[in-house]
Amino acid sequence: MKYSGLFTDLYELTMMQGYMLQDTNEEVVFDMFFRRQPFSGGYSIFTGLYDLLDKIEKMFFSADDIEYLRSLKIFKEEFLNYLKEFRFSGSVYAMDEGSVIFPNEPILRIHSTLMEAQLIESLILNTINFQTLIATKASRVSYATGDGTLLEFGLRRAQGFDGALSASRAAFIGGADATSNTLAGKVYGIPVRGSMAHSWIMAFDSELESFRKFTELYPDCTILLIDTFDTLGSGIENAIIVGLEQKKKGKSISIRLDSGDLFYLSREIRKRLDKVGLENVKIVVSNDLNEEIIHQLITDGAKIDMWGVGTHLVTGGTEAAFGGVYKLAAKKINNKFIPTIKVSNNAVKTTNPGIKQVYRFYNKEGGAIADLVALQEEIIPEKRPYTFYHPMYFHDKFTLSDYGRVKPMLSIKMKDGIRIQKAAPIIDLQKNVKNNLKCFDTSYKRIINPHIYKVSLSEKLKSLKAELLDVYK
Amino acid sequence: MKYSGLFTDLYELTMMQGYMLQDTNEEVVFDMFFRRQPFSGGYSIFTGLYDLLDKIEKMFFSADDIEYLRSLKIFKEEFLNYLKEFRFSGSVYAMDEGSVIFPNEPILRIHSTLMEAQLIESLILNTINFQTLIATKASRVSYATGDGTLLEFGLRRAQGFDGALSASRAAFIGGADATSNTLAGKVYGIPVRGSMAHSWIMAFDSELESFRKFTELYPDCTILLIDTFDTLGSGIENAIIVGLEQKKKGKSISIRLDSGDLFYLSREIRKRLDKVGLENVKIVVSNDLNEEIIHQLITDGAKIDMWGVGTHLVTGGTEAAFGGVYKLAAKKINNKFIPTIKVSNNAVKTTNPGIKQVYRFYNKEGGAIADLVALQEEIIPEKRPYTFYHPMYFHDKFTLSDYGRVKPMLSIKMKDGIRIQKAAPIIDLQKNVKNNLKCFDTSYKRIINPHIYKVSLSEKLKSLKAELLDVYK
Repeated sequence: MKYSGLFTDLYELTMMQGYMLQDTNEEVVFDMFFRRQPFSGGYSIFTGLYDLLDKIEKMFFSADDIEYLRSLKIFKEEFLNYLKEFRFSGSVYAMDEGSVIFPNEPILRIHSTLMEAQLIESLILNTINFQTLIATKASRVSYATGDGTLLEFGLRRAQGFDGALSASRAAFIGGADATSNTLAGKVYGIPVRGSMAHSWIMAFDSELESFRKFTELYPDCTILLIDTFDTLGSGIENAIIVGLEQKKKGKSISIRLDSGDLFYLSREIRKRLDKVGLENVKIVVSNDLNEEIIHQLITDGAKIDMWGVGTHLVTGGTEAAFGGVYKLAAKKINNKFIPTIKVSNNAVKTTNPGIKQVYRFYNKEGGAIADLVALQEEIIPEKRPYTFYHPMYFHDKFTLSDYGRVKPMLSIKMKDGIRIQKAAPIIDLQKNVKNNLKCFDTSYKRIINPHIYKVSLSEKLKSLKAELLDVYK
Repeated sequence: MKYSGLFTDLYELTMMQGYMLQDTNEEVVFDMFFRRQPFSGGYSIFTGLYDLLDKIEKMFFSADDIEYLRSLKIFKEEFLNYLKEFRFSGSVYAMDEGSVIFPNEPILRIHSTLMEAQLIESLILNTINFQTLIATKASRVSYATGDGTLLEFGLRRAQGFDGALSASRAAFIGGADATSNTLAGKVYGIPVRGSMAHSWIMAFDSELESFRKFTELYPDCTILLIDTFDTLGSGIENAIIVGLEQKKKGKSISIRLDSGDLFYLSREIRKRLDKVGLENVKIVVSNDLNEEIIHQLITDGAKIDMWGVGTHLVTGGTEAAFGGVYKLAAKKINNKFIPTIKVSNNAVKTTNPGIKQVYRFYNKEGGAIADLVALQEEIIPEKRPYTFYHPMYFHDKFTLSDYGRVKPMLSIKMKDGIRIQKAAPIIDLQKNVKNNLKCFDTSYKRIINPHIYKVSLSEKLKSLKAELLDVYK
């Protein structure tokens, strides 16, 4: 499959033509970063990198695409000829897919000509923003479930075809255990799961008959939906009949609640199940769940084993976009990279200049303690103590006198337009996320009001930023 | 292009196999409807129908798909053979794309075998829910802008590839005037627009030079971004220089604000522009806008001509999913359709049984006054007065003694698996929406706290529902 280069904002193309005609197509470095954690959370999960690299490699302009651009009557033949031959030939540095990320540090860095860097901006942001949003949400929801099983049931509420497919991928990487989306199962190798709809029950003459028929067919993965008519009246009673029949055959069922007060119902149902010896029957719940609701249900003592989460998991719910941005960090003039800065009256929106690397500092037990953004050229310290500067309030600093490993977070993923590594199996990406999160104290992972993890500047970068700010002020 | 039948929830497939093996694959009717307006709004815009019909027509299972399903070890060969030959052969009744829709009335109705109806559930909900969400949002944002121009700038924050492409389509149908998404321009024929990024300005030695170069290149569609360094300091002053140069050539520019207080800045800038005779220069704004912010800016007297809206427009913002559902309404037993009902302790979640039609009642001036859900078999009234029943509180009724046209809203769109009409040009769909909305009083279109439009049941449908409820209680 190839990806149309037209999947970009028009202004990227008009700017590109401008750079070509003005002969200002120098080498540049762009950073992708974000400014604020989504969901008022303490961290995000960097996701979408392999998909992105794949698309960048396969991005091109078909004859049709060129014809369309010509019809807009704003592009010259010289530029259209350039696009006809277009292949991205730059390099991509990025954090590993599944990394735990924080605001104001570069998570991805593009080295290429200005024209190329501009063209792929929209694609980078579209791909990484969405998948990172969903993996982050999934990680939060998964964290809230504790030892529970998380099933992603979002297809029907997802934002279009790819909004479902990419979301299933990202949700799995972030911590979901399975998806209902059969195509995602095939394409990404994600385990697929499902129960039954109310229509199954309504298609039979009785609820009990419908339960029995389903269980006969799928004795090893039965989940009976018990709220079609009356959960505590008929639903659980019919499920118990079938559960006991299955128990005799050495099989176990699960039951699913899709409405009502899940706290009350789950406890009542657990009691009734246990009373008749059906301790093995698992309780699955669904119904517009999110991490806050799950957290509260668990804290209160609901008896729930599996969580089916749809809408919130695949769309982000109340927060439907991850605010990643893409800014010029340096441009080559006379064969030397000159740092650039975008200044804003809003200090948060002022960028960090230059070609940068991110270092994660760990304590001796392997716990992450702080991130540092430094210039690529700096050599970061075995020497200690080391002093960290606040990215905006430069007088604000702190010193670590004792730490363990220091890990550079950005590494090369694509060189001269060619990917360096093949995509990792998705299950490995999920494991990476779990292992990465283990290095962070629970205070950063709290669902509500988490501790803020520090991202600081090196002294050199702080000084460079201060210097450039002085020039503009 | 073909669409994989695997783009469905696993449970649709397990239920389908169940229906096949139990020999319960009768003819059925399913309704799609929704229960609550998104965005606390007064209406929604039905969108996505043509895309959906296209996908349904082209849905099939490849050899690969079948192989994948076989690998799950829950499907029998008999069923896999059925899928190999699968083509949807049922019929689709729906409202016209671009219709103004309300909760608890069917907006789409499927007539097919139970297996087929079940398979396409996920696809229907995924397609219609997303595009309807976005068209509805766009309609609200467009309404808020009054006579302003609405530019959809959402690609980089959209939920994946199709989350951007379908969103551009739906946003245009709902009322956006143009998109920044070049591919959407090509695929759907939507006008494309754009300005410049901060990186353009940063790529030159001075802001003024960057403005001049851009204007030389695109003299007929210049939008200068003036907030890279200092909006009221350098930005507007440099834009004025270029604006005056262009004026001498008989050309006009626009300027764009992407940060700061848009009310204050737009008024200050309008003043400065007017003072030097640049009354024709248009002011474009962007920066995380939504309909509430726009409404307030306009009410307060901001001087803004064009609105670039991204995130909120293509994702729905704080509400990222439209809650359309798909429920069994009738099934054929002994060659006769028997109405079915799904009962819930929550009255809102109890379905309306039977094969239904929706009638929109207009007053003599052409204004929509109320919708009626009736049984398909009923003949709806030239006779008046006519009595409408509340869909849940049956004692609650009202009578219209005087009205004009009565329009049946559902019509056949696909017969025996074949589409009846070709897709309408997208500009016609946008016009339909505008015309349809004109029939509704502004009180239903208010951004905040709108009047609730009534959707009622016919006496016959009310009686049928009451009767079926009695059976279950």
